[in-house]
Amino acid sequence: MKLNVNGLLIVISGPSGVGKSTVRKALFNKKGHNLIYSVSMTTRKPRDGEVDGVDYYFVSREEFERRIEEGKFLEYAEFVGNYYGTPKDIVEKKLDEGHEVVLEIEVEGALQVRKVMPEAVFIFLVPPGRQALYDRLLSRGTEDKSKIEERINKANREFLLAHKYDYIVVNDDVDNAADRIMAIIRAEHAKTERSIHQYMKLLGE
Amino acid sequence: MKLNVNGLLIVISGPSGVGKSTVRKALFNKKGHNLIYSVSMTTRKPRDGEVDGVDYYFVSREEFERRIEEGKFLEYAEFVGNYYGTPKDIVEKKLDEGHEVVLEIEVEGALQVRKVMPEAVFIFLVPPGRQALYDRLLSRGTEDKSKIEERINKANREFLLAHKYDYIVVNDDVDNAADRIMAIIRAEHAKTERSIHQYMKLLGE
Repeated sequence: MKLNVNGLLIVISGPSGVGKSTVRKALFNKKGHNLIYSVSMTTRKPRDGEVDGVDYYFVSREEFERRIEEGKFLEYAEFVGNYYGTPKDIVEKKLDEGHEVVLEIEVEGALQVRKVMPEAVFIFLVPPGRQALYDRLLSRGTEDKSKIEERINKANREFLLAHKYDYIVVNDDVDNAADRIMAIIRAEHAKTERSIHQYMKLLGE
Repeated sequence: MKLNVNGLLIVISGPSGVGKSTVRKALFNKKGHNLIYSVSMTTRKPRDGEVDGVDYYFVSREEFERRIEEGKFLEYAEFVGNYYGTPKDIVEKKLDEGHEVVLEIEVEGALQVRKVMPEAVFIFLVPPGRQALYDRLLSRGTEDKSKIEERINKANREFLLAHKYDYIVVNDDVDNAADRIMAIIRAEHAKTERSIHQYMKLLGE
């Protein structure tokens, strides 16, 4: 018996360097879930081995801009001359099919999604302390000092946006963080505002 | 690292016959939790083997009524000549100590608690269908027909109060229902409104 028919849109976001993709991968490695990852759309050319519809949806600049005008993105951004975005129609189709759709995105994109789809579940992943994040950003090491400073400044600004999210999940341990997100998904399905219509149907039987 | 210092008050309620105490026991049998069960206060005389502070807090009618006047109950009711109630001060002390305090109570009592402590987590346990509950009420069998009808009518009225709760948990399987409640407790601790102050402290470190 299933009280909820539609899946949830799960937005995993947080300061750059907090470990979003590591936690997202750990989440997908859990058993017994119905999660799918939202594939982004881009105007960037495919690299060797990249598959359309798997790594990205590859489209022309014209098509991307037409879709922007038609309001067909949950969020999008331009980055070094290419567009990247989350196609709204594809996400909605997957949700209708009952999948939980996971978006793993930067803070700015997450706040765009909040405006278009406020009923999504917004999770702010945070480090167990400020220093832990700085250490991580520093240990990446390939970038020059001014670039690292810029990222630290960005993280410091993003730290203050936690209140715009529904949940704060501490990434003290990757597996723990993934478990917390799993619990959030389960609890969200049981929320009265999400389940009451199905419950009333159940009573009508 | 712990974002939340205080425990949560978890109110497990639902129509009579839905299996509240079975689910509550399954919940307490889970591992790695910090739950404690709220002991009720009563003016009923202790039965053989009942221990004060374990089965109930046994008090005189005078003391109970004095506590009512002082607003020291989260909820209370009179039942066949005796008072039964949930002592507010004891619950608050346990929450301050970081315990999750579980109340397993009738719908009427739960709605009283909601008024006094709206920040508690209100869970409405429901049967997988109307008939499942009727079957259960009938199978208890020791009561006469009019009493069973009365309980069915009461359940039918209570079914309609689901919207007053934060979560609806289907008791399709006792262990599943207990798992769902565990997930709810975990998710509630991660809710931004509950964890943001601790998070800001963490950043200040």
